[in-house]
Amino acid sequence: MNEYRTRLEAARRVMDAQGVDALCLSVGSDLPYLTGYRAMPLERVTMLIVPREGSAHLVVPGLEAPRVSVPDNAFEVVGWAELDDPIATIDGYLGEAETVAIGDETWARFVLELQHAGPSRSYVGASDLMAELRMVKSPAEIDALRRAARTVDTVVDEMADVRFSGRTERSISRELIERTTSLGHDTMDFWIVASGPNGASPHHEPGDRVIERGDAVVVDFGGTQDGYCSDTTRMFVVGEAPYGFDAAYDVLREAQACAVDAVRPGVTAGSIDSVARDMITEAGYGDLFIHRLGHGIGMDTHEHPYIIEGNGQVLEAGMAFSIEPGIYSPGEWGMRIEDIVVVTPQGVERLNTSDRAYRVVD
Amino acid sequence: MNEYRTRLEAARRVMDAQGVDALCLSVGSDLPYLTGYRAMPLERVTMLIVPREGSAHLVVPGLEAPRVSVPDNAFEVVGWAELDDPIATIDGYLGEAETVAIGDETWARFVLELQHAGPSRSYVGASDLMAELRMVKSPAEIDALRRAARTVDTVVDEMADVRFSGRTERSISRELIERTTSLGHDTMDFWIVASGPNGASPHHEPGDRVIERGDAVVVDFGGTQDGYCSDTTRMFVVGEAPYGFDAAYDVLREAQACAVDAVRPGVTAGSIDSVARDMITEAGYGDLFIHRLGHGIGMDTHEHPYIIEGNGQVLEAGMAFSIEPGIYSPGEWGMRIEDIVVVTPQGVERLNTSDRAYRVVD
Repeated sequence: MNEYRTRLEAARRVMDAQGVDALCLSVGSDLPYLTGYRAMPLERVTMLIVPREGSAHLVVPGLEAPRVSVPDNAFEVVGWAELDDPIATIDGYLGEAETVAIGDETWARFVLELQHAGPSRSYVGASDLMAELRMVKSPAEIDALRRAARTVDTVVDEMADVRFSGRTERSISRELIERTTSLGHDTMDFWIVASGPNGASPHHEPGDRVIERGDAVVVDFGGTQDGYCSDTTRMFVVGEAPYGFDAAYDVLREAQACAVDAVRPGVTAGSIDSVARDMITEAGYGDLFIHRLGHGIGMDTHEHPYIIEGNGQVLEAGMAFSIEPGIYSPGEWGMRIEDIVVVTPQGVERLNTSDRAYRVVD
Repeated sequence: MNEYRTRLEAARRVMDAQGVDALCLSVGSDLPYLTGYRAMPLERVTMLIVPREGSAHLVVPGLEAPRVSVPDNAFEVVGWAELDDPIATIDGYLGEAETVAIGDETWARFVLELQHAGPSRSYVGASDLMAELRMVKSPAEIDALRRAARTVDTVVDEMADVRFSGRTERSISRELIERTTSLGHDTMDFWIVASGPNGASPHHEPGDRVIERGDAVVVDFGGTQDGYCSDTTRMFVVGEAPYGFDAAYDVLREAQACAVDAVRPGVTAGSIDSVARDMITEAGYGDLFIHRLGHGIGMDTHEHPYIIEGNGQVLEAGMAFSIEPGIYSPGEWGMRIEDIVVVTPQGVERLNTSDRAYRVVD
């Protein structure tokens, strides 16, 4: 059976289990996951309506309709003209649905308009429903993630031969972008280059700071290749590491390795966070590890499962996520090591395999 | 007074007039318009809460907080840690607010969570409120739009010397992107290259079709420069125009010119649409003009006011929008001419000034 038909049927089974009568998806990756079509983020609404039984309909602006291809008659396309009321059309396809799950990234405007059009319906978030479908990747999806990971690993290796000192963070980030897209990424999604004290801000935006000898530089970047995302972090040290860096780095590297080794089916996402956090805390750096351990990855850079304290989600083979502990010493330096891993029936596969030692550069 | 303080005060005046107790803004351009800060589209929520009286608060993920700069103490930054409940924090800042306006592009997930946290509040869309603020541009904003328009005009002129025949649409679109970014655009937002029969689909995605002699090619592209958007469409004809093209083009060009000339303070947006539509209809092409005449432009490519039949919005000096009639002959060709214009106290200024005759290329 066609992949999208299979996914739509799986969606209906989850709807059944969760007591959801209809599923509404708009912008974001949920829609292309189920249909192959990505909606433009526009004031003209696009919405897929999947009832628990009966046909699914994709309501799209007439101007976009020619861009939709329908795999194996999996759904019907309904184009709306400029003077139509698409909200009334969508509400019509919802029929007798009482509980309607709506995609996470749908614009507030359309949620409010739908609630107004059908005040007796109960709208709920589609997060759990879509996570149930998207969290466990197919072999083809894992292969796409593997290819994306290989690209950024190659870039990391190339960057080890690049001169850092005397250049701005922005210049290094531009080089990252160029190398990654020329090696096959379709888009870049983020490109963090955080040097010296800037490294202590995990999401630092590369700026005009000139990198100098003695800087530790956090390089964290990723993008999309054939629809699936990459995300890796490696450390670069210009000449010599700053005071206190090496001792912390040994702890970080060991914690990252142990967290990866702990990944296998049947354990919780939260328990993996604890493995790294406990080791970093015992070494005295606990207060400097200020974020969760990781996040799921697939068609989105951040998706379920989130590797965070208290998350009782049980890991299953096929789940893919980052393991990225960090230690941030304000005013001095920051460090993070990040790999994407996939849960296998036996344990774990690292998709990023570039050297995790920090690279000493000029 | 600081620009952002001025805008926040203007927002409070409109809230007062519209009976809105609090304004909540997240992803999209509304937030940077009021604060200078653009939220990352993330599962970690960012939200500005502006009560009608009292301080505004920007609730942001702790990891993003270092990236926020606060102009003139216009608002307070509240970072939330990984295990906090930011929805409870936001709901707390809403205090006694009964009617809460929420930004158009806010993720559905957060709207539903806020409704759940404060079920007695009434959430409404912030479209009208923000349109009231953003529709009339300041001289500095118009200048930014003018600079962005100048860039794409230059690219159009350059493209007139480029060979089209024998190349794919995708190849031409890549060249458009390179030229536009190298001339100063920070990002490209869209790049339509629609050749021959593909031109009949207004939002055609450039593909593998090889352009040949006798093709008319719709080139419609735009991006962002210093935070403000460009958007222009010009026609390129390879060698000789296809059958029926020239007669229709004369009508289109005249209709576009007359619609622009009709722009002035005091007339409605809908009346401008009618000027072009009536002329095209009288010439017998009415059924082939299948979209509205235009859209507002500013920090977003598409914003208020929409130049569409029935829109009673009265034009005021400082409003900026596209005038882009098109004629689409299915299976044959398509054509569109698009300029960004600004309403002036006396009438209208065209920001795009490149030649509107179609360019004959090899």
